[in-house]
Amino acid sequence: MSYGSINTWKLIEKEYKPEKALLYDSLFSLGNGYMGSRGFHPEENKESYEAMVFIAGVYDYIKAGITDFVNTPNIFYINLYIDGQLLNPFECNIIDYDRELDMKNGVLYRKLTVRDSKERDTVIEYSRFFSLKEKHLAVTRYKVTPLNYSGEITVLNGIDAASSNNPIPDDQLKSDSEVVSLFDVTSINHYKKNSVSIGFNTKGTNIHMSEALCVVSPEGGVEHDSISLAKIVGIKSTKKVLKGSSIELDTYSAIYTSRDGIADIEKASKEMIADASLRGYRRVLRDSEEEWSLKWDISSIDIKGDDLLEQGLRYNIFQLISSNSQHDGTVSIGARGLTHSRYKGCYFWDTEIFMLPFYIYTCPEAAKNLLMFRYNTLKAAEENARNQNLSGARYPWMCNTDGIEQCETWDIGFSEVHITADIAYAIENYYNITGDIEFYLDYGAEILIQTARYWASRFTYDLRNDLYNMLFVKGPNEYGGVTLNNTYTTLLALYNLELGKKAIEMLKSNRRSKWIDMKSEMGFEESEINLWNDIITKAKVNYDEAKNLYIEDDNFYKLEVLDISAYKKGEEPLYKTICFDRLQRYRVIKQADVILLMCLLPDKFSKLEMKAAWDEYESITLHDSSLSYGTHAQFAAWLDYKEEAYSYLMKSIRLDIDNIMNNTGKEGIHFAAAGASWQAFIFGICGIYIRDHTLLAKPCLPDHIKDVQFKLIYNDRKYEIKIDNSHKPLKTNISTVD
Amino acid sequence: MSYGSINTWKLIEKEYKPEKALLYDSLFSLGNGYMGSRGFHPEENKESYEAMVFIAGVYDYIKAGITDFVNTPNIFYINLYIDGQLLNPFECNIIDYDRELDMKNGVLYRKLTVRDSKERDTVIEYSRFFSLKEKHLAVTRYKVTPLNYSGEITVLNGIDAASSNNPIPDDQLKSDSEVVSLFDVTSINHYKKNSVSIGFNTKGTNIHMSEALCVVSPEGGVEHDSISLAKIVGIKSTKKVLKGSSIELDTYSAIYTSRDGIADIEKASKEMIADASLRGYRRVLRDSEEEWSLKWDISSIDIKGDDLLEQGLRYNIFQLISSNSQHDGTVSIGARGLTHSRYKGCYFWDTEIFMLPFYIYTCPEAAKNLLMFRYNTLKAAEENARNQNLSGARYPWMCNTDGIEQCETWDIGFSEVHITADIAYAIENYYNITGDIEFYLDYGAEILIQTARYWASRFTYDLRNDLYNMLFVKGPNEYGGVTLNNTYTTLLALYNLELGKKAIEMLKSNRRSKWIDMKSEMGFEESEINLWNDIITKAKVNYDEAKNLYIEDDNFYKLEVLDISAYKKGEEPLYKTICFDRLQRYRVIKQADVILLMCLLPDKFSKLEMKAAWDEYESITLHDSSLSYGTHAQFAAWLDYKEEAYSYLMKSIRLDIDNIMNNTGKEGIHFAAAGASWQAFIFGICGIYIRDHTLLAKPCLPDHIKDVQFKLIYNDRKYEIKIDNSHKPLKTNISTVD
Repeated sequence: MSYGSINTWKLIEKEYKPEKALLYDSLFSLGNGYMGSRGFHPEENKESYEAMVFIAGVYDYIKAGITDFVNTPNIFYINLYIDGQLLNPFECNIIDYDRELDMKNGVLYRKLTVRDSKERDTVIEYSRFFSLKEKHLAVTRYKVTPLNYSGEITVLNGIDAASSNNPIPDDQLKSDSEVVSLFDVTSINHYKKNSVSIGFNTKGTNIHMSEALCVVSPEGGVEHDSISLAKIVGIKSTKKVLKGSSIELDTYSAIYTSRDGIADIEKASKEMIADASLRGYRRVLRDSEEEWSLKWDISSIDIKGDDLLEQGLRYNIFQLISSNSQHDGTVSIGARGLTHSRYKGCYFWDTEIFMLPFYIYTCPEAAKNLLMFRYNTLKAAEENARNQNLSGARYPWMCNTDGIEQCETWDIGFSEVHITADIAYAIENYYNITGDIEFYLDYGAEILIQTARYWASRFTYDLRNDLYNMLFVKGPNEYGGVTLNNTYTTLLALYNLELGKKAIEMLKSNRRSKWIDMKSEMGFEESEINLWNDIITKAKVNYDEAKNLYIEDDNFYKLEVLDISAYKKGEEPLYKTICFDRLQRYRVIKQADVILLMCLLPDKFSKLEMKAAWDEYESITLHDSSLSYGTHAQFAAWLDYKEEAYSYLMKSIRLDIDNIMNNTGKEGIHFAAAGASWQAFIFGICGIYIRDHTLLAKPCLPDHIKDVQFKLIYNDRKYEIKIDNSHKPLKTNISTVD
Repeated sequence: MSYGSINTWKLIEKEYKPEKALLYDSLFSLGNGYMGSRGFHPEENKESYEAMVFIAGVYDYIKAGITDFVNTPNIFYINLYIDGQLLNPFECNIIDYDRELDMKNGVLYRKLTVRDSKERDTVIEYSRFFSLKEKHLAVTRYKVTPLNYSGEITVLNGIDAASSNNPIPDDQLKSDSEVVSLFDVTSINHYKKNSVSIGFNTKGTNIHMSEALCVVSPEGGVEHDSISLAKIVGIKSTKKVLKGSSIELDTYSAIYTSRDGIADIEKASKEMIADASLRGYRRVLRDSEEEWSLKWDISSIDIKGDDLLEQGLRYNIFQLISSNSQHDGTVSIGARGLTHSRYKGCYFWDTEIFMLPFYIYTCPEAAKNLLMFRYNTLKAAEENARNQNLSGARYPWMCNTDGIEQCETWDIGFSEVHITADIAYAIENYYNITGDIEFYLDYGAEILIQTARYWASRFTYDLRNDLYNMLFVKGPNEYGGVTLNNTYTTLLALYNLELGKKAIEMLKSNRRSKWIDMKSEMGFEESEINLWNDIITKAKVNYDEAKNLYIEDDNFYKLEVLDISAYKKGEEPLYKTICFDRLQRYRVIKQADVILLMCLLPDKFSKLEMKAAWDEYESITLHDSSLSYGTHAQFAAWLDYKEEAYSYLMKSIRLDIDNIMNNTGKEGIHFAAAGASWQAFIFGICGIYIRDHTLLAKPCLPDHIKDVQFKLIYNDRKYEIKIDNSHKPLKTNISTVD
C-alpha cells in the first residue's frame, strides 16, 4: 500500500499500452443513468462491438426469448484528417499521453501528442461527458494543434451505425465469436450543414431511437459539411490551421427512444442539440457539474490518512451514480451497469442486496425506483411462478426490463431461487430506513405477500419427519451444487414469510379496502397464513448447537476437503482450473453464503454464532465472485478483526481500479462489488447501524485512518457522521444537517 | 386386443391421411445399417428437412462443438410429368391406395390409383429397398400406367441436394424453427445419358460423400436424359405410353463416403450402380432377400395365438436389424436409429442396456462392433474424465462417432453419469454370453479398468461417517432431480469396480505382458485396488432392512406425494403438464430405476427384494420414457404377475406401431423400446436365463399364447427354444441346432 499523494478525485492514465486498452475502456466509462459508454478513444480502430454505448432499458432478441443489451450506435466516432489524409493517432509515435477521469465533475479528459510518419507533431485534446442534468445529452470537445507544420485539418464527428453486439454465453468458460447487429437505420436527415439526425429501430423489440448530432466551432473559421459514408453519418469540419494554432470543435449528441413516452423523439433530439449548442460547452458542462456537486455533497466520503481507500471509494460511488437511472422505475442496474454487455446487461440480486443500500442512504428516490422496477415486473414474476406450477410470484434470476427469465442454465436459472427473498428483504430494508410508508402500502406489500406465497409453495413437506425441506436449490455459494436446505435460502425465505404476514397486517390497518380488493384479486385465503406459520416453525435449518454453527446446507460435511493452496493461484477463480462439476464435491465456497446471510440479518444471530461462522467458512472461501470481498470486510469489522476487515475492504474497493480479478477490461465494472464496498466501509469499518429508530455507529477503523466524514439520509433526514481517529479513544459524532 | 388375422410379416396402410403422414414416414423407415431413410413418398412436397436419408456416422457441426445427424441428399426424389405437366399424385383424387412394408424381405411397396383434374386415371406403383447384402446400394422401381388415356409420360428420378437439417434442442419442450444445410455440392458428373454422380462435402466435419444414380428401363423404349435443375440432379426418362400400357423404371443409387476407407469413392459408387443395373432389379433384390432370410432364420420369433404380438415383435426386430451397421465398429445406433435425427442422432446408454442383448443373442459380431465403438472412443472418454478433473474414463451421456459429449444441459450431461457403468456392464454381459475372451482381453478389459478408475474418483469420501457418497447424480428416473446416492448408479458403479478388479486378474492370468505395458501406460498403481475395495465395502446404499427395500436415493422420502390420476392423462408425459423443476419435488418416477437395476443384476437381489421394489415403485412410475414399459414387463413376468407383464409388454412392443406415446411421427422409431421389447419377451415372458453355463427357461406365458418358437446363440452355439403352452403343464424344449 502506498500513501503517496494521489489525486483522490481522479483516475489518471499516463502511458498508452494497447494491452491495457480494454481495462481503461472499462475504468473510464461514463454515464448519467439514462445512457453511458465505455472510455474508448474516439479515433481507435475498435471492433464494431467494442466501442460500447448503452441506453438503459434498450434490449433486443438474440434468439427466441433471450435478449442482449443493445450496443447502440457509437455517437463518439471521430476521424481526423491532415491535408486530406486519415491520421490514426494510435498508429503514430505517441510522444506525450495523458488521460484523466475527473470524478468530481464526471468528465473524461485526454491530451495526446503524436508524431506521424511524416514527422509532423500534433497535439490532440479531447473531453467527453454525459450531462447529469440533461439526461439525453452527451457532449465532446475536440481540439487539434499542429506543432511543427501548418495544414488543412478535417475532423469527422460522426455516429457509427455499424455498432454490433458480441453476445456472451452465460457459461463463464465459453466465448462467442458471433457478431450480430441488433438495429436497423430507419432514417437519415441532414437538416443542416452542421447537424444531422438518424433514426434506428431495434430488430426484435422494435424500440425506436432518434439520435441527433451537431458540431460547433466556438472560434469560427470552420467549414462544416453533413455527410453519410457507408455506416458513418456525421459532420465533416475543415479548417486551414497554422503552426501552433488550433481547430476546436464541440459536438452535442442527443438521444431519445420510444421508451421515453415522448410523441416526437426526432424533434426532441433536434431541439436538445439546438438548445445545448446555443448555450455552449462551458454552460452545459457547468449545469452538469452542478448536478454532480449535489450528488457528491450527499455521497462523498472524505478520509484522512488513506488516499488509495478514498480514491477507490469515490470511484465506486462515481460508477454507482453514473449507471443509475434515478427517476426511472422501468429499469434496474445491470451487473456491469452501463459499462459492458456482459451477462447480457441483465439485472440480478446484485441490485437489491449489494447496490441498493447505497441509494437508500444517499438518494431514496433512486432506491424507490429500483424497487418500483420489481413492482412493475411483478406480473411477470407471477407468470413465472405459474409456469413453474407454483403460487405467488417468483422473480427471475436474471432479466431485462420485461422481468422474464434470461438465464439459460438449469442449475442457476431454476435453482438459485433466493433472489425472490432477496427482493422482499430489500423492500423491508428500504422501508425501515426511509420510512416511506406510501411505497410500502401502495407497492411493496403486494410484492411481500406474493413472494411469501411463492415460498409457501416452494417448500416441500416431509410427512415422515414433520418438517419442511427446501429441495434442489443453489445458495449464493454457486460451487455448492444443486443442494438441499441451503441455510441462506431457507432463512431468507422464512424471513420473507414473516414479511408477508407483516404486510397483510399493515394493509389491514392502513389500507383496509385495498386489502379486501387485493385479496379477492389474488384469491388469497386467510388459511394460507396457517401454512406460513407451520413452515416458519418446522422448516429444516442445519444448525450445530454445540458449536453455535449455522451449517451451509445438508451436504456440506459430505464434501471433500480441498488443499486450496495447491490449486488456487492469486485471485483467479478456481473454476478456470477445476471444472464446476468437480468443484461442487469439494468443501470450498465460491463466495460469502452463511456470512452474507448474517450481514443481512445481523439481529438474528449472536456474536458467538457469527464467530463460529467466520471460523468455519472464511478459510475455505475462494472469493471467486466479486460479491464476496466486501461482505467479508463488513463481517470481519463486526467481529473486530481489524486487519482482515481492512484487507478485504481494499480488495473490494480497488477490485476494478487494480484489476484484481483480471476481468475488468473484458467485462466492465463490477457494480455489486462497488455497492458491497460502500456497505463494507459504512456498515463495517464505520459500523453504522440503526437501533430504536436511531442512527448509531460502532467503528472498527484501522489506526492509519485519522478522520472520516460523510453524510447519510435516514428517515427523511440528512445526517453528518464524523469519526475522529487521530487520538485515542476514537470519537464519533452524528448530527443532523440541512 | 384383436385376434383378427393380420399378416404378421407386414405392416399395411390402406388409406392416405395427411395427418398420419409423418407417423407412416417413421413406421415405413428402411435401412441396412450403413444407410437408411424414412418412408416418405418420392413425389411428396416435403419440407427439405422432412425427407430424411441418413448415412451411419455422418455428422456435422451446427454450432461450436455440437453436431447434428446429417440429413444427406435425398436419393429417392421423383417428379412425374404427364404430357409435360407435373403431376403430384397427392394433390389428385386418390381412388385406391395401398402401402405395405414387407418385413421378411425388407421392401416397401406402394400402389396408388389417382384421378387428376383432367379426369385422367393413373396407376403409380413404387417399391424401394436398401440392399442388405450390398450396403452401399439402394434400389427403387417406379411404374406408371395410364388407365383411361394415352400420353407422354416423363419421370425424373433424382437426387435432391437441397436436403437440410432442422436441429432439435435437447430440451423436449423447445422446438427449433431453424433450418440449416450441412453440406455443399462439390461436383456433378453427367457421365452417361442415364447415369449421374455427385460429390458432397459436409461443411464442418469435412466428410466427402459420393452418390451415383442410374435409371434403367427393363422393357426399353424409353429416352433418358441426365439433367441438373436448381438443386435436383438426376435422370429424366420419357416414353409415349398407350392406355393400359406402362412405363417401368428401375433406379440404382450407390453411396460411398470418405469414412469407408476407400481411395476413390466416386469410382466405387459408379461401379456399384453399373454392376447392379447389369444384374437387374430381381437379382439384386433376391441377393438382399437372401440376407434377410439368414437374419430372420436366427432372429424370428414365431408365436401362435397372438398375431398383434408376433407382428409387433417382428417389427421391433426388423428395425433393430435395419439400423445396425453389423460390421462397423466406428458407429453405434442412435436413439432413433436411422429413422430420425431427433437427439441429434446421438448414441446413448439405449444401445448398451436396451438394444445390445438382442444382438448378443442373435448376431454376436454386431454386438462386438457396438462395443468396439466404445473401445474406439475410450481415449475421448479418458479426455472427458480429465476435463472433469477425474481419473480413468468417463463416457459421454450422448455422443456421435468421436465420443465427445453432445449433451448441452447440465443436469443431464454432467449428472446422469450411470452411462459409464452401463457400458462396463454391457461388456461383461457380452463376454458372459458369447464367451469371446479375445475381445474381453484385447479391448474390454481396458475399458473395465479405466471406467472403474473413473468411479473410484467420482465417489466422495465422508470422513465423519466413514462412508462413500455418490454426490450430485441423476439416475434413470430423470424426474428425481440432481440427487445423492441414487441406488441404480451406486450399485452399477460398485459392480463396475468389481469388473475392474476381475479384468486386472484376467489380464494378469492371460496377457501378463500386455497388462504390464498397459499398467505403465495408464500409470496404474496396485494400491488403487485398495481404494476400490474400500469403496465397495463402504459406499452408502439406501436400503430398508425391515421392508427388504432398496430405496431410490437419499431424497426419495423427502418428496411430496402426487395424486397422479389428477394430472396424468393417457400416455402423454407429465412433463408437458408439470414443469421439470416442479416434478423433481414430487415422489413420482419417470421410468424404471431400481426396477431396471434389478433386471440387469437379478442374481444380486432376492425375490422378496424384487417384490418390495415392485410394490413401492410400480404404482408411482409414469412411464414418461419409452424405456420403461419393457423393463416393467420383464420384471412383472419374473414376479409371475402375468397380467401386468403382458399389458406392459404390449405397450412396449406396439409403442411405435400404435403410436402410443404420440411422438413416433415427429421423432422416429424408439430403438431402446424395441430392444426392451425383445428382452421383455425373451427374458421376461419366455424366462430365458443362464445358470452354470446353461441356457434355461422359466416362462410366464399368458394362456392365450399357445406356442412360441425362436433361436438364440449362446456361447458360440445356436439353440432352438420351443415353448408349448397348448396343454398344461407348459413344456419347454431347448436344443442345439446345426
